Amino acid sequence: MSEASAVRVIGLWASPFVIRVLIALKLKGVEYEFVEEMVGKKSELLLRSNPVHKKIPVLLHHGKPISESLVIVQYVDEAWSSAAPAILPADPYTRAIHRFWAQYIDDKLPPAIRTLKGTDDGDEEQAAGQLSAALQLVEAAFVELSQGKSYFGGDAVGYLDIALVSHVGWVKAVEKIAGVALLDEAKVPNLAAWAGRLCAHAAVADAIPDADKLVEFSVKYGSFSKPINSGAK
Amino acid sequence: MSEASAVRVIGLWASPFVIRVLIALKLKGVEYEFVEEMVGKKSELLLRSNPVHKKIPVLLHHGKPISESLVIVQYVDEAWSSAAPAILPADPYTRAIHRFWAQYIDDKLPPAIRTLKGTDDGDEEQAAGQLSAALQLVEAAFVELSQGKSYFGGDAVGYLDIALVSHVGWVKAVEKIAGVALLDEAKVPNLAAWAGRLCAHAAVADAIPDADKLVEFSVKYGSFSKPINSGAK
Repeated sequence: MSEASAVRVIGLWASPFVIRVLIALKLKGVEYEFVEEMVGKKSELLLRSNPVHKKIPVLLHHGKPISESLVIVQYVDEAWSSAAPAILPADPYTRAIHRFWAQYIDDKLPPAIRTLKGTDDGDEEQAAGQLSAALQLVEAAFVELSQGKSYFGGDAVGYLDIALVSHVGWVKAVEKIAGVALLDEAKVPNLAAWAGRLCAHAAVADAIPDADKLVEFSVKYGSFSKPINSGAK
Repeated sequence: MSEASAVRVIGLWASPFVIRVLIALKLKGVEYEFVEEMVGKKSELLLRSNPVHKKIPVLLHHGKPISESLVIVQYVDEAWSSAAPAILPADPYTRAIHRFWAQYIDDKLPPAIRTLKGTDDGDEEQAAGQLSAALQLVEAAFVELSQGKSYFGGDAVGYLDIALVSHVGWVKAVEKIAGVALLDEAKVPNLAAWAGRLCAHAAVADAIPDADKLVEFSVKYGSFSKPINSGAK
């Protein structure tokens, strides 16, 4: 078994939850094989590897499966603990604060994004408002945690950076789809600058899909209940 | 500042999410002061300590607040890392599996419990079925993880034991409220035996409220949409 095939990721390039696993592996310099799922058709390997949720991403390490993206990111940090950089902060309190906000992001962003791209029913204007309000809280957390440095993790990309940046592609895509400004310099100047910086980072640049590609993906595979641009907004 | 007032828990005795924080602290032998919230009235301290969610539990450690129960349990393990026992397993893969199932439990159990105790609307029979199915999956995980030993954590109480046992009081209460068998020897023999063992554990016994007290609490404070025992079931 080659070093790369010791680590396999079952995923889909467009999934924010998959993206964060890839970023964690790239940060740690871990070689991996990407096993691409087909949209709308779950592979035997996926069903066998994550029988509980039947969802991507799954990390297979020497054949042993791990599911749930934030669980995987923590696993990558712990299983390759000697490979720099550390993903979780060293200080227990800061770790807790990173975990708190990562959970907040996953509670608040995906439902609003699904509504804005038309996958879920719901009031688009309300969803845009909720997403915007969430980003503003996260902006305030960024100011506090980064202490004037580049990332949530300070000088280095950390757990919370990974948790949030994985959604940036879709936030930018729904800005186009719904015609709203979200990750906007005028609204969240610090996060907007952070996103620009982080999306240019070597471990991140290739993993975050271009917003136009995601819009295309959404048109092709999303179950739109409304026209893509509903005009007025 | 005394050693106990260095650690304060803002909570309510009936909350499963608060219970798990207390168990973690008791396991580690950490003295704490319990700051009881009043039902239906959020204290200034709570609002100031958890402005994002305004929810219990909050752990205050030398005044610094941490929210979200599983985040707090991990914090307790990491901040008192030299105090035995370790709560998270040592092996990265086993840690990931514990985290996966803890998340599963919090995704599946509370919504079904809320429906069965009448706090949320919903089909009670369906909720009982979902709760039962979830417990059966967790039973299978127990058999795999405990390897014939007493707990999910093997010989010692671990993260997943804490995550699940904190719901046991309410599971038993909704058995009475809805007249259904859930954590039942015939259905989930291993979990039923595990619950009996763990609820007698020194760090757990005082923290898990009696089912009858929870039923009483539910009658007093719950917003019942139906009579407590709807007869037929």
